[in-house]
Amino acid sequence: MHIAIIGAAGMIGRKLTERLVADGQLSGQPIGRLTLVDVVAPAAPAGFTGRVDTSAADISKPGQAALIVGSRPDIIFHLAAIVSAEAELDFEKGYGINLEGTRALLEAIRLAHLQDGYRPCMVFTSSIAVFGAPMPDVIPDDFNLTPLTSYGTQKAMSELLLADYTRRGFVDGIGIRLPTICVRPGKPNKAASGFFSGIIREPLAGQPAILPVPDTVRHWHASPRSAVGFLLHAASIDLEPLGAQRSLTMPGVSASVGEQIEALRAIAGDKAVALIRREPDELVMRIVGGWARAFAPERARRLGFVAETSFEEIIRVHIEDELEGGIR
Amino acid sequence: MHIAIIGAAGMIGRKLTERLVADGQLSGQPIGRLTLVDVVAPAAPAGFTGRVDTSAADISKPGQAALIVGSRPDIIFHLAAIVSAEAELDFEKGYGINLEGTRALLEAIRLAHLQDGYRPCMVFTSSIAVFGAPMPDVIPDDFNLTPLTSYGTQKAMSELLLADYTRRGFVDGIGIRLPTICVRPGKPNKAASGFFSGIIREPLAGQPAILPVPDTVRHWHASPRSAVGFLLHAASIDLEPLGAQRSLTMPGVSASVGEQIEALRAIAGDKAVALIRREPDELVMRIVGGWARAFAPERARRLGFVAETSFEEIIRVHIEDELEGGIR
Repeated sequence: MHIAIIGAAGMIGRKLTERLVADGQLSGQPIGRLTLVDVVAPAAPAGFTGRVDTSAADISKPGQAALIVGSRPDIIFHLAAIVSAEAELDFEKGYGINLEGTRALLEAIRLAHLQDGYRPCMVFTSSIAVFGAPMPDVIPDDFNLTPLTSYGTQKAMSELLLADYTRRGFVDGIGIRLPTICVRPGKPNKAASGFFSGIIREPLAGQPAILPVPDTVRHWHASPRSAVGFLLHAASIDLEPLGAQRSLTMPGVSASVGEQIEALRAIAGDKAVALIRREPDELVMRIVGGWARAFAPERARRLGFVAETSFEEIIRVHIEDELEGGIR
Repeated sequence: MHIAIIGAAGMIGRKLTERLVADGQLSGQPIGRLTLVDVVAPAAPAGFTGRVDTSAADISKPGQAALIVGSRPDIIFHLAAIVSAEAELDFEKGYGINLEGTRALLEAIRLAHLQDGYRPCMVFTSSIAVFGAPMPDVIPDDFNLTPLTSYGTQKAMSELLLADYTRRGFVDGIGIRLPTICVRPGKPNKAASGFFSGIIREPLAGQPAILPVPDTVRHWHASPRSAVGFLLHAASIDLEPLGAQRSLTMPGVSASVGEQIEALRAIAGDKAVALIRREPDELVMRIVGGWARAFAPERARRLGFVAETSFEEIIRVHIEDELEGGIR
């Protein structure tokens, strides 16, 4: 089996690569080849015995997607994206990568299909940012796509493209609407949601963290481990039962910032909580104010997608996966 | 006031032009200039005393949208589209005009905005084809976008673009999801919905008509006169109350084919009904089977959009507007 990951150098891309290498197989099929692509060439993974091709490519540029598709991967994980705050600040870059990139990839697949019947499985990472206010407290699977950011717009448009290219038989696509991934390891990125991880990650490492929104802000979370699990599950199941609606909201944990902080206190004590400094930020509050608070992701649950069931569990996964099981 | 109509040579475009010329004003502002564009140059309207520019242009081609935007119309009606069945048969043409055309127009507006703050009102004709099965019998305003055709996908994507460009302040946009327009005058076009008009229009003219679906098929209709009314109303109202959700399902009449036929019988008798020949067509049945049966267009109604209230009224509008008030 030949698996391509576009956006392989990102946080989820690296974890997905590691997991594929560790498993050595997907759905019982041995993985013989990995194609790893990002705007900077991803590192070749240690311990993989099959063929690995790594390359630097921007799939929105002419010919780049065709190069990847030319090697005819059986499964394409498309994770490459400009994150929310950056797509909001740089309008052209956001549309360039998040919309044109996805479209160029699907077009390369379509042209390959017309050539020789190629029809890969494509797992696309979408986002709950496709939803926006006004919305109910718990969002059902048939709620409309009402993005309030350019990022959410680009993801929603890509979902529509993926569904249409699938319906036409060019690709077997599935869109995975990731919850806000928490706790993100490493340095903060430019996502407006970064603080949700920061207020847990930094205190666990003995560092101060800034909280730009009130404690009452409620949001939908899953761990990086769950995110990788979603993607692998998406690439493993029969996608026929999805019918024409190819994108799914993933399970997660609905937690307020206050509940997040109490979970941190239960695990790491008052000392950790004291490291959180409140610094209200109007821009972040405005963006986050339009985000979803909770979902009823029935379709995904029926198809076997699973996430954590409490915010404490999300913190424990971070401690296990990133802090070698221990905290400061 | 300077008004541009893109897609001015089409059925709705011509009726809209006629109405603007007859009214001479919009929202109390005199219309001093019309810019009429289509892939073939539209005819200059008779009886208009202001300036008229007509031109042949494909807005998806480089530089064409910028030419239109260069004249800085106050209001742009964007009606240009490849219809449903044609967009299904010609994948590239459909995406070219229906997605790239809209995007090119919005990009031209954005670049003009960056240059001098230009921010026109843009009225975009979307379609109830943005919805698809599975769906409830009566579709609420917050139902998700689940197109089952490439045409519906392209319209849904354009709605999302319009909302984002509006949110960013580049344009003041509104998307009008037209019901299936019935009774269309003139010759059949390539729309899969063409028979809904055909089974009324042809018998009223003493001609035979083909019915490719069962009598139980239920769908959502409004007259060409209502469609023009929707567009003019959209260009006349304050769009601020729309908030971030810039596209609206329009009011209409929910009628089954059987009810359409009975309305025809009530107006034109058994002789007219006898001209309808049943010839089931699998492709049309498959496409139409995924279409909406009825809507609860509360947002549009609150904003003052009105349509016919019975299918008989729709037929009478056709007789008044197209048959000089009389039938054969």
